[in-house]
Amino acid sequence: MSATVSAVRNGVDTQQLFGTLDAVKADPSLAKFQFRARNRWIAGAHNRSVIRDFYAANQEDASRTEPFVLDAGEPAILLGSDTGPNPAEYLLHALAACLTTSLVYVAAARGVQLTAVESTVEGDMDVQGALGLSDQVRNGFQQVRIAFRVEGDAPEHKLREVVERASQRSAVFDMVTNGVPVAVEVTTR
Amino acid sequence: MSATVSAVRNGVDTQQLFGTLDAVKADPSLAKFQFRARNRWIAGAHNRSVIRDFYAANQEDASRTEPFVLDAGEPAILLGSDTGPNPAEYLLHALAACLTTSLVYVAAARGVQLTAVESTVEGDMDVQGALGLSDQVRNGFQQVRIAFRVEGDAPEHKLREVVERASQRSAVFDMVTNGVPVAVEVTTR
Repeated sequence: MSATVSAVRNGVDTQQLFGTLDAVKADPSLAKFQFRARNRWIAGAHNRSVIRDFYAANQEDASRTEPFVLDAGEPAILLGSDTGPNPAEYLLHALAACLTTSLVYVAAARGVQLTAVESTVEGDMDVQGALGLSDQVRNGFQQVRIAFRVEGDAPEHKLREVVERASQRSAVFDMVTNGVPVAVEVTTR
Repeated sequence: MSATVSAVRNGVDTQQLFGTLDAVKADPSLAKFQFRARNRWIAGAHNRSVIRDFYAANQEDASRTEPFVLDAGEPAILLGSDTGPNPAEYLLHALAACLTTSLVYVAAARGVQLTAVESTVEGDMDVQGALGLSDQVRNGFQQVRIAFRVEGDAPEHKLREVVERASQRSAVFDMVTNGVPVAVEVTTR
């Protein structure tokens, strides 16, 4: 019983974590995942995604009993009625969330007990690009900055190593910094 | 009154849209925006972002009376307890939402009345990368596909042009396909 309790660090079951790593090493086909979202336009800048099913470890996952529902919008200055965060804000959240989870998992694996992780993320955008007013200005953020405050039972250099390792392994950090091929298909009827 | 009514197309006030474009053309400094999120770790894969303030058109925006709160998590197979969509799923939502809003705005500007816009987006990930088990496999999605179904009062070629133009002007599509520089800062105490 005490072994089980001590295996949970930072809210992560490290026995399960190391077991997962061993299982994927033994059978790399378990590592093939597919995540999905379904989006539907409501009106103006208001649209909604439903997220539930995904594919993992050679099968469709059935663990989620309810879908997650996310509403997007735009503030008035961008012609919306604030029905949700805007898409660029969702991207900032995705980035902060992924780096944070990566950091927490890395710390758990390395025996570092964390007591606080906070971050502020900001992205600078010149909307001349997205508004179609300039071809010299990109549509997306020109620069993103994320500032972490990390507290834990390890010396500063070790806490910094944990953040460094997390940024080397975060899925969303990789995608946002390096880009991903996106294929767009359209049907009309 | 009838002029005002007819100016709203797809839920977008096209008079306001063209007025915004004219204002930014006249004073490009109005186009400088900064979006932000603040994230706090709760436990394990559970963390939460709060999104409210942003900078736009030479001032801090004060239009949002309440913050948006977004919870992230991971499913059991990724060592979480499903406290929210995972960060990679949030990124898929951001992408679908941004392309959809861009498409709706482009259609409004071009006089196309839309009746339905739906999309499904999926991303393929080999988690050997994010788990740190392989340096040959990237951490993020290897490929993303988004399939739109668009219905409206325009011929097929025009509806396709609207989607094409939207993907040329979407902020998140730009960021996800081309990448953005991300600076990570850390403080410990």
